Amino acid sequence: MIAEKGTLNKGYMGTILRVDLTTGKVKTEPLPEELAKLYLGGRGLGAKILYDEVKPGIDPLSSANKLIFANGPLTGTLAQSCSRWMVITKSPLTGGIIRSTAGGSFGAELKSAGFDVLIVEGKADKPVYLWINDDQVVMRDAGKLWGLLSDEAASALRKELNDEKIKVATIGPAGEKLVRFAAIVDDRRTASRGGVGAVMGSKNLKAIAVRGSRKIELADRAKVQEVTRNQIAISQQSPLFQGFSHLGSPGVTVLLHELGIYPVRNFQGGILEGFHGNLTPDKLEEAFIKDVHCHNCYIHCGSIMRVARSPYAGKEVEGPEFETVWSFGGEVGNTNLGMIIEANRICDDYGVDTISAGNCIGFAMELYEKGILTKKDVGGLELIWGNQEAIIALLKKIVTREGIGDLLAEGTKRTAQKIGKGADKYAMHVKGLEIPAYDPRGAKAHGLNLATSNIGASHMTGYATQELFGIPEPAERFTPEGKGKLCKRNQDLMAISDSIIACGFPFLFGWLGIATYKQLLPAATGVEEFSDEEYLLKLGERVYNLERAFNAREGFGRKDDMLPSRFLTESPKSGPVKGHIFEMDMMLDDYYEARGWDKETGNPTRTKLESLGLKFAADELEKIGKLSE
Amino acid sequence: MIAEKGTLNKGYMGTILRVDLTTGKVKTEPLPEELAKLYLGGRGLGAKILYDEVKPGIDPLSSANKLIFANGPLTGTLAQSCSRWMVITKSPLTGGIIRSTAGGSFGAELKSAGFDVLIVEGKADKPVYLWINDDQVVMRDAGKLWGLLSDEAASALRKELNDEKIKVATIGPAGEKLVRFAAIVDDRRTASRGGVGAVMGSKNLKAIAVRGSRKIELADRAKVQEVTRNQIAISQQSPLFQGFSHLGSPGVTVLLHELGIYPVRNFQGGILEGFHGNLTPDKLEEAFIKDVHCHNCYIHCGSIMRVARSPYAGKEVEGPEFETVWSFGGEVGNTNLGMIIEANRICDDYGVDTISAGNCIGFAMELYEKGILTKKDVGGLELIWGNQEAIIALLKKIVTREGIGDLLAEGTKRTAQKIGKGADKYAMHVKGLEIPAYDPRGAKAHGLNLATSNIGASHMTGYATQELFGIPEPAERFTPEGKGKLCKRNQDLMAISDSIIACGFPFLFGWLGIATYKQLLPAATGVEEFSDEEYLLKLGERVYNLERAFNAREGFGRKDDMLPSRFLTESPKSGPVKGHIFEMDMMLDDYYEARGWDKETGNPTRTKLESLGLKFAADELEKIGKLSE
Repeated sequence: MIAEKGTLNKGYMGTILRVDLTTGKVKTEPLPEELAKLYLGGRGLGAKILYDEVKPGIDPLSSANKLIFANGPLTGTLAQSCSRWMVITKSPLTGGIIRSTAGGSFGAELKSAGFDVLIVEGKADKPVYLWINDDQVVMRDAGKLWGLLSDEAASALRKELNDEKIKVATIGPAGEKLVRFAAIVDDRRTASRGGVGAVMGSKNLKAIAVRGSRKIELADRAKVQEVTRNQIAISQQSPLFQGFSHLGSPGVTVLLHELGIYPVRNFQGGILEGFHGNLTPDKLEEAFIKDVHCHNCYIHCGSIMRVARSPYAGKEVEGPEFETVWSFGGEVGNTNLGMIIEANRICDDYGVDTISAGNCIGFAMELYEKGILTKKDVGGLELIWGNQEAIIALLKKIVTREGIGDLLAEGTKRTAQKIGKGADKYAMHVKGLEIPAYDPRGAKAHGLNLATSNIGASHMTGYATQELFGIPEPAERFTPEGKGKLCKRNQDLMAISDSIIACGFPFLFGWLGIATYKQLLPAATGVEEFSDEEYLLKLGERVYNLERAFNAREGFGRKDDMLPSRFLTESPKSGPVKGHIFEMDMMLDDYYEARGWDKETGNPTRTKLESLGLKFAADELEKIGKLSE
Repeated sequence: MIAEKGTLNKGYMGTILRVDLTTGKVKTEPLPEELAKLYLGGRGLGAKILYDEVKPGIDPLSSANKLIFANGPLTGTLAQSCSRWMVITKSPLTGGIIRSTAGGSFGAELKSAGFDVLIVEGKADKPVYLWINDDQVVMRDAGKLWGLLSDEAASALRKELNDEKIKVATIGPAGEKLVRFAAIVDDRRTASRGGVGAVMGSKNLKAIAVRGSRKIELADRAKVQEVTRNQIAISQQSPLFQGFSHLGSPGVTVLLHELGIYPVRNFQGGILEGFHGNLTPDKLEEAFIKDVHCHNCYIHCGSIMRVARSPYAGKEVEGPEFETVWSFGGEVGNTNLGMIIEANRICDDYGVDTISAGNCIGFAMELYEKGILTKKDVGGLELIWGNQEAIIALLKKIVTREGIGDLLAEGTKRTAQKIGKGADKYAMHVKGLEIPAYDPRGAKAHGLNLATSNIGASHMTGYATQELFGIPEPAERFTPEGKGKLCKRNQDLMAISDSIIACGFPFLFGWLGIATYKQLLPAATGVEEFSDEEYLLKLGERVYNLERAFNAREGFGRKDDMLPSRFLTESPKSGPVKGHIFEMDMMLDDYYEARGWDKETGNPTRTKLESLGLKFAADELEKIGKLSE
């Protein structure tokens, strides 16, 4: 295969790889320069391709959906913390656009093989895997891999291809079984939100193995190095650096628990009895084995953990991240760290999102508490808060779709719809995506992002560091006023970051950001426009609005930018957030105002879309009667 | 197996692993606290164990020799550039002590398995490999691995053990065939000097596979982090950082060529015609694919290179290092970088030292030039300077011990002895170890180190950065006066660094050094003595003197601290060093004076040994009549 190359060959490889699983056809296309300049890479490029190629109304788990693996212009280069990879597709959990991102080194390897983007379309008639060895791209039988755990599949592939250096993105058994929050796993890093693994499973694609040896050219290598050097030096001065580069995200657990926004028992409370001394970093320290890191990242926030004592002693795990310390901790009323690590292992091995999985279990426990689910319904499990055996047993049922697990594997939204009996009151999701470890009542811009995010309740699409860490400047967290503008800015900035694809952590801590991007991007690519802060901000807003147009085309609107009623009407029973509710309607108005969107529909206007170079989206929405004026 | 643990369990694992290949017996011993305090780790600990356990007069390639793999107290920790590993044994090239070190990640993994030191003794009756999986240590048949190239053997082991994460130290076919400068390979990093791979081959030990999951405890983790952070920040301010972290050691090629100390045609001259534009960094850039790094090192000086054009297009190589750009460049009169990369690949695949290999070929070429070797002697090769085909062909003969290669595989010293006819005049070695890429006439303290180094002509045992880079302060390079003291200090400091085992590069550039070590070591180990600069300097001197005592016991002395006569009587034909010779005798006197050694024998006195806590060595040397008073 001779790859067709676009004209952008600094930072970018200039080539899109397209594989049709139905026909087995492989082709390459030049990466259009215009597209890269307007959408940068990763999330932006993925959104544009998805918008253009996936028409409204299709079933996300049908062959009509596409799975887009995207790199960014800094992936695989010496730039630090910028080699994550991203999957963009239509989510089987939300029915809207999803972008899910992972660290590891699969993306850098894919780029080394010569590709900025891999578009997987169609559906194989039996399990297959893709083997991308530079120019050689083949689809092969994966009969023997089907059913293997994620790490087993990666090992088996390395053995079959007789090369231990190949990088593998694979699904586990949960992806094969179309668990709606199944993940794609790259060693122990996962692209896990929104069911990207289920889309891969629905295409009968077990894994993608890649090995590349192409060189990534840079426009001004010395400049990239210089900026990187400064970036590292500055971040290391940060008081957060030490803790973060050791234990990673769980280091923030104490802070968030103190703020009362670490949700407890399916978001009923904000204080977990027994938290101290059990889920605090000193306890993590006991299981800590060593630091690990993604491709070209000096932060090494990853930790290899292993539980020393039974019943959870055994296999090594990477993680848990903060979110998992919550989803299998506070959310399910558990304070045993060993159990959290074991649950993390099961999620990684079978390939599911730890946030949705733990949230679904907490949801089931509350339904059990309220009598909506009985012991008989849940296969005899005693689903009371903190019952470790029951939690692990239920998780295993979910990842294998056994008994009640088959229902919960549909996610909280669909499960509630099927159960009826008022269960939806306890389903803690937005747009179908389960809410992560933050109580929106205790951080309003943060909560507003959870409500309005295009992909559903993702903390990573507009994290309000101002409210939680005082970075870059503090914002009072309980105040609803002015949070629309703050939320919009956070979301647009994150859209730039995600299009690069830079890691969320240094971005949130202020170690990476637009001031660095505007130096790194032109130095890597030679595209002078990228040195203009306004240009980049507009690009971020463009990406955000195009995703919104994708969703609008699918019928999304203001009704979907909605937190569960619990947050709007109840206040937590204890802790610092007691007495606070979420001022939903008022904040939505404020947000749409800041976005320049129509307050009634919650969708972009022609004026806004045209100002961002998205006339094509305005025209299409108008044609189907979904454009607000 | 339950590992016996010593009391030092911070920084150290507290355990020595001993494997007897003759009997297959495996045992563990506590690491004696006293030993760790006096010898630190790596080179120091290895020297003490070798001194105690390997009695004088044994054949290095017999079962009586021992192969000691040693880690240091910072190996595998978050300290940066400190996770190299080291092999200490009796050298089949010199008959004296050798320490050879490699990067990669084998050492960190061995430590994670729980071991500070691995002592391999005896000899298996057929090819075996060791498989160290935490506590499980077994010796297994390596019949199928025998004959495989180093990377093939590592792949086959990962496949056989069904775990792509195992780390492997292996020999290639050259080690099996007892090429006297055979290396041990850890992926593409090698412990290559002095024939450590031949010792491994003589024991029928093809490889060691290791996988560990133990935690390394630190006495004060926050302090280690803080010091590391500063170390990184300071190094990144260095003007050398940018180039070094990109292309690594070949970046210094231009400087050394300008200084006229990049030896040409087996050290006949100092200027290579066609050097510019062919062996300069711009040319390396063409083959550069990506940066790589050793375990826990932010510098990523390693480069993956691949030649784009035939006849050397093909397999990826890590490197070449500066030394290889010389040994297959200037030394053999070649200016084709592609050929250097191909030679590097052959050396790594078959497992030999690139310095000795290139030096042996340059030696053969000069013998051919002088008529001492004829075309018939060398199997019909036209051994003229720069004849690429002949160089590659001869290298292949050496690594497979075919024809003339069987003779050259013995190293320059033994080859010259066997050939006679005055060939020894052209054998560029000290103590049997081939001289690396520095003309001693153009940097006197540097040359003095090459002459006096305990392991033979190693630049890394006392690199005179003062003369070559002006670090930490400039020293006039042609002046012989005062260089004894400078050389001693450089050697003692390097002995500390090698006992840690810190990487030589940041050490030479001043990014790591005693000021950092005295903070890192107590923070990691809790041993307060390590915070005392004087204590550390004495420790370095102790290690240096103990190695010397080992050699003295084998019959080494002043006669062996000798550069080839070429440097003492001839001056280079061109370049900046023209007109300079090496003032051997005067400088040796000055050096022994600085060392407090006997000028006649070149060996330590009782006074010196006792002052360093080495009375046992003084007593033994006296008993066998080898102690100077």
